[in-house]
This record gives sequence, C-alpha cells and structure tokens, in this order.
Amino acid sequence: MERRRIAGLYVIVDPDACGAMDPVEVARAALQGGARVLQWRDKRRDKGDQLDDVRAIAAICRERAAAFIVNDHADLALASDADGVHVGQHDLPVDAVRRIVGGLIVGVSTNDADEARRAEAAGADYVAVGAIFRTRSKDVTRPASLERLRDVRAAVRVPVVAIGGIDASNITDVVAAGADAAAVIGAVCGAAAPARAASELAAAFG
Amino acid sequence: MERRRIAGLYVIVDPDACGAMDPVEVARAALQGGARVLQWRDKRRDKGDQLDDVRAIAAICRERAAAFIVNDHADLALASDADGVHVGQHDLPVDAVRRIVGGLIVGVSTNDADEARRAEAAGADYVAVGAIFRTRSKDVTRPASLERLRDVRAAVRVPVVAIGGIDASNITDVVAAGADAAAVIGAVCGAAAPARAASELAAAFG
Repeated sequence: MERRRIAGLYVIVDPDACGAMDPVEVARAALQGGARVLQWRDKRRDKGDQLDDVRAIAAICRERAAAFIVNDHADLALASDADGVHVGQHDLPVDAVRRIVGGLIVGVSTNDADEARRAEAAGADYVAVGAIFRTRSKDVTRPASLERLRDVRAAVRVPVVAIGGIDASNITDVVAAGADAAAVIGAVCGAAAPARAASELAAAFG
Repeated sequence: MERRRIAGLYVIVDPDACGAMDPVEVARAALQGGARVLQWRDKRRDKGDQLDDVRAIAAICRERAAAFIVNDHADLALASDADGVHVGQHDLPVDAVRRIVGGLIVGVSTNDADEARRAEAAGADYVAVGAIFRTRSKDVTRPASLERLRDVRAAVRVPVVAIGGIDASNITDVVAAGADAAAVIGAVCGAAAPARAASELAAAFG
C-alpha cells in the first residue's frame, strides 16, 4: 500500500465539534472541499460504538486518496484499516505504537522543538505542533506560537502539522511559517457549510 | 508462550475501586491471596499514563504464572505484553480484536446464552456472564442470575467467568453453578486486607 502524504489541509473530525451534523457527512464535505488528511477523534464513545462511523470515513478517504488517521487508539486504527494513528504525550509512546501498527503512519503531538526531535527519533512519521493560536475546542495548557512552529520545522525532517485555533484568518501565516499541513477542527466541523469552509482553508496551500 | 488458564479467582484491578491503595500493591496482594487471573481496568486515565502500572502488574503476574488481561484496549494489552484482552459488547468486536492480538486470550462480556454462543463462534477464548448479583461498582443495566450462569455454562465450551456482586457470601454458589472462574472487584480491591480477602474467595475453588 502506498503511503499517504501528510500535507495540506488536515481536518480533525470530532463528533463533539460537529454539533447536529453527522460526522460522516462532515468528513465527506471536508474532502470535497479539499482536505488531504482526516483524523477521527472521539473521546466519548466506546470503540465498538464508533466503528461504523470510522470505517465509513476510512472508505471515503480511500476513494479520494486522502490520508485517514485515528486519534489515540492503535487498535481502532487497525480495525478500521486506517492509514495511521495519532498519539499525544499522554497516549501510548511512539515505540509501543510502532510495534503494534507496523508500517502505518504514526503522528505525535508536540509542543516544542525538543519534543518534536524526540518524537522523530522515536520513529514518528510526522509531528503536530500547537496550540499555535487560541482555540475553543481544547483548554490550551501548553501554548505554542508561529515562532515555535518555525523552530520545530527547522528541528525535524518529517512533515510538521500546525494545530490550534487555525482558521481562514490565519492559515496563510502557518503556511508561511513552514507548516506542511494545518489541522483544524471547529473551522470545518463547526462551520455552517463545511465543504466551503474547507475549500477556503485548502486554498492557503495553493 | 504457554497460554494461561482462565480459572479460579479472577480479580479486576480498577484504580477507582482501590481507593487510597496503590493498584499495583492491590494486584500483588490479590495474587498472594491466590487469584489466578488479574484484569486491569482503567476507564479514566490516558493509556500512556497507565502504562507503568500495567507493565508492573504484567510482570508480577508472570512471576506467579497468573493470567493477565487488559480491559477494552488491545493496543494497551500488546504494549504491556499482557496475556489477553477483555472486551464488552460496546468495545471492538471479537473478530477485529483477534486480528490485532493474534494468539492472545480474548474474553467477552455476555449477558445470556445467545450472546455467549455468538462470542464463542466469533472466536472468544472465554466468556464472562453477569451481573449475577447486585453490585456497587457498576450500574447494572443487564442483570443475570445463577440460572443464567448455568444456561451459559451449558451453551459454550470455553471457560465461563461469573461476574457481578460476587463476594465471600455467595462465591460458592457461582462455583456450584458451574463457573470456571469468579470475577470480583470491590470484594478484593475495596477490602481492608486484599490478600486475606482474596484468600477467602479463592478457597471456594478448593
């Protein structure tokens, strides 16, 4: 299987952020709008109860040759034939995840150049860095900045995903700072027209 | 690796049920008292934050040749070199878990003979049935009974684990009804002297 690239608009689909909209429909709209990576994140439901949604989104990502990443759960990623798994600093460590998922993509949340270097050395295929801007979807306990993003970009060779408060007003700034991808949640999932919102954001990648 | 048997006293170690006691010490005490199977269950913390405890308990189970099972998370089971994983009806389905964990033990929570038969047909290595008695550690949405336990025992060939409100006053009843193992939480984790409590319960298996 060819590995999907982590680049361009990266949309995190979290049912909690989708409001009344079906998360599978939000995922479809995000891809129609030009998202190149989708991440599934559901901190609430048991994994078996998520599985239908996750498999449906995996299938539409395959149709569009977009990368599909599952947050936190390597087992759910394997069960849904996802392209990869994304872990934070409190999830299973990269080396443990690597042994479980083999050649799948493993992404890691980091906060600065040191964490990013450690993640890359441990085998991460990409690093996320944030929160670059203020965000409503998560309590920001560890703020980052555009300068931090530049530091991380200079520190590692793997793709760098900027995350945290990114929207149409600032996405060009993170692209200019060297982000390979920009991850958004509310700017697409919380939009009245997710496909159009994604399209506006994806335009930043030219 | 030889497969551990699922038989005898089966103690679920849940940090929430351990109160002020260190769950690793509770696990050690349970094994000293004669538990033959331990299950780790932590519904609260992120998996990375559980990993030290889980690996410590896996190691002491190996020393005593007891089976070590991780609740819900196949990835955490693999990351901690556990003997198996236990899934409920809302967790990943048995066939998906089997593909992830290969030859590890896969146990499934069931409520009646039909569910138990389906779990066995899907490849479960043991089934749990409950809640046999009233319990404080979980809202019992699906009560079972000793009669239900006998039905399940007659319906499947794999080991049957009775669960739900089992303590020193009733454990002989579930053994008499054919349970291969009896799973307890509060009766050991919530006991002032977990090793002695486990020893009293293990005596029911003669």
